[in-house]
Amino acid sequence: MKKGIFLTCVEDVTAVDASVGLVTTETVTFDTELRLESGRRLGPITLAFERYGRLNAERSNAILVAHAWTGDAHAAGRHAPEDAKPGWWDGMIGPGKPLDTDRYFILCSNVIGSCKGSTGPTSINPRTKAPYALTFPVVLIQDMVRAQKLLVDHLRLPSLLSVIGGSMGAMQALAWAILYPERVRSIVPIAGTGRAGPMAIALNGLARQAIFNDPLWKKGNYKADYPPVDGLALARAVGHISFLSSASMELKFDRRFSAKDGLFDFFGKFEVERYLDYNGSSFVKRFDTNSFLYLAKALDLFDAAWNFDSLEAALERILCPSLWFAFSSDWLYPPADTERIVALLEKAGKAVEYQRIESDYGHDSFLVEPEKFIPYLRAFLQRVSGF
Amino acid sequence: MKKGIFLTCVEDVTAVDASVGLVTTETVTFDTELRLESGRRLGPITLAFERYGRLNAERSNAILVAHAWTGDAHAAGRHAPEDAKPGWWDGMIGPGKPLDTDRYFILCSNVIGSCKGSTGPTSINPRTKAPYALTFPVVLIQDMVRAQKLLVDHLRLPSLLSVIGGSMGAMQALAWAILYPERVRSIVPIAGTGRAGPMAIALNGLARQAIFNDPLWKKGNYKADYPPVDGLALARAVGHISFLSSASMELKFDRRFSAKDGLFDFFGKFEVERYLDYNGSSFVKRFDTNSFLYLAKALDLFDAAWNFDSLEAALERILCPSLWFAFSSDWLYPPADTERIVALLEKAGKAVEYQRIESDYGHDSFLVEPEKFIPYLRAFLQRVSGF
Repeated sequence: MKKGIFLTCVEDVTAVDASVGLVTTETVTFDTELRLESGRRLGPITLAFERYGRLNAERSNAILVAHAWTGDAHAAGRHAPEDAKPGWWDGMIGPGKPLDTDRYFILCSNVIGSCKGSTGPTSINPRTKAPYALTFPVVLIQDMVRAQKLLVDHLRLPSLLSVIGGSMGAMQALAWAILYPERVRSIVPIAGTGRAGPMAIALNGLARQAIFNDPLWKKGNYKADYPPVDGLALARAVGHISFLSSASMELKFDRRFSAKDGLFDFFGKFEVERYLDYNGSSFVKRFDTNSFLYLAKALDLFDAAWNFDSLEAALERILCPSLWFAFSSDWLYPPADTERIVALLEKAGKAVEYQRIESDYGHDSFLVEPEKFIPYLRAFLQRVSGF
Repeated sequence: MKKGIFLTCVEDVTAVDASVGLVTTETVTFDTELRLESGRRLGPITLAFERYGRLNAERSNAILVAHAWTGDAHAAGRHAPEDAKPGWWDGMIGPGKPLDTDRYFILCSNVIGSCKGSTGPTSINPRTKAPYALTFPVVLIQDMVRAQKLLVDHLRLPSLLSVIGGSMGAMQALAWAILYPERVRSIVPIAGTGRAGPMAIALNGLARQAIFNDPLWKKGNYKADYPPVDGLALARAVGHISFLSSASMELKFDRRFSAKDGLFDFFGKFEVERYLDYNGSSFVKRFDTNSFLYLAKALDLFDAAWNFDSLEAALERILCPSLWFAFSSDWLYPPADTERIVALLEKAGKAVEYQRIESDYGHDSFLVEPEKFIPYLRAFLQRVSGF
């Protein structure tokens, strides 16, 4: 499925065998109330996180990895030797890998609103002793970052060498640099945007409606073992399409019809439909519906200029160098979104680097073809770390 | 909402006040069985159609207008003086208009599989005396054209001066030229494709699943006055998104939030979502769910090379000149699809013209900015008609 590689400086990440090995997801609970952007309060706050590599004596080599929509804290290694798959960014994190655990201390925390160990709609509301469900407050990316800051303080990290993430992770990286400029020494937003456009919102709107239409959803009060599987699977399929591109679909599926179906069967399907079905169904087993909805809302509401008079005013806060990646075939958060921010940062005289990566894999390019941006990332980290 | 006009030769269609006036939808029933591409038989066949202008003495000035997915035979004029809206292509059809009823005899017929008067899943199956519902056979675009041919024969039209249509109408125009080369003297496919790509199929797959998920759908056996409104409205919203473009959504909605909702309401919506909701809900009142599904299937299964060894072999059959339009921001049937066919026709030495129209309105451009292609269409029709 991979196509030719365009960069002059290339490395094959899959060839690197090194792993962070067995890891554990830790949790920490902060007995505090976070004042959210909505004005509501949320607390206590539990955060799930993982850490890899060692903090140096100066406590200056910490990199925060921020995950995307349905990601989690388990970014690298395995929880048990028999685990079929390692963490979601295992190709990037480990000894000798781009996020080199021989050099850097890597931290990944699950965002609030999610269902992967951090406080979210599946958590028990201490006031009612029942799951929050839809009584959970709407959270913004900025709220997620504020919760992560509790963890960074808890681990006594005076600053982060970098905050790195793709998609929703890119939004968090940007929000970190705006909210806590004195605590971050660089950011690397990948396939992100300063604010979701109406196409991205409309697609998430379809996903929402697919869930709302499912009678099992029950306005969010479904039982944990009886979730709205049809609605969530369809919602995931909507998202999945937005992560791909026409070109990647043509490479992978073209117009092949399912070998099990007759072309003239009313319920007959093309391979691309079967693939989306399969992905939707397996997603239902690993993700909570209300969390999916709350995180979709955070994505749509994200605006880097939130609480500022303008995007320029928000970006003026940034003190650290930044490295931005966007992907040519990404139609969810297209390169123009990133280029708009990069242009403003340049105009403001900030230290900014940008690489527009040619890739056919749409928004997912950052996961499918990391070798195309890794050389730039390695060089950037070496420069900002001075190691 | 309109942007600047790029063409040197421009006309304002809205300024043309001329109308074909009051019109009636006629129907004709053919007591025959059509052998479908699936091998199944369908009959008798009823077709709904409208006609405007006058057939000349030589019976040589007939133009067939082929409608898109949810279109109908009512292309121009009004059924009653108090009708709020005229037919769906009224700006194009009438005295002095591009499809000039002072010169041409215009025919528009509703396709089989639809719910607008022609035989489709809502029709009564004469064998069972009940609506076909899902016992209706899967039909291809080629089957629709074969049914239209019955009408053209019935009206004793020795040939069609042109077959013109956008989207699914473009597919019909192409199929006419391949199936009945001796009966068409030109075709004008607008915003079409020789075969739907996996992105278009995947989007229709979402629409299908949205309907299948609705418990009111009942495997197609819903009552006429109790249709699966939530599923069909969501399915329509999927389609609607695919007809638009990022640019047109930004122009129309940007990130405006509904004035009625709080930004932090869980059920709060952006304007673009409200718009899709509204359109979905009004669509439910005018279209049948099973017809929507059968026509979606015909769109996805369309392949101009069907029954031929190759697309080249299929196109080799075409004897008449053709004029093709594609729109720069159309991501459903992108210009590359049309350009592939045009290149093959050129290679085969056929008389072919192509205009790639710059427009920000996505697939819908052909309806939103007709003034951008009308000059070419007028000139082409004048040339092929010799009038």
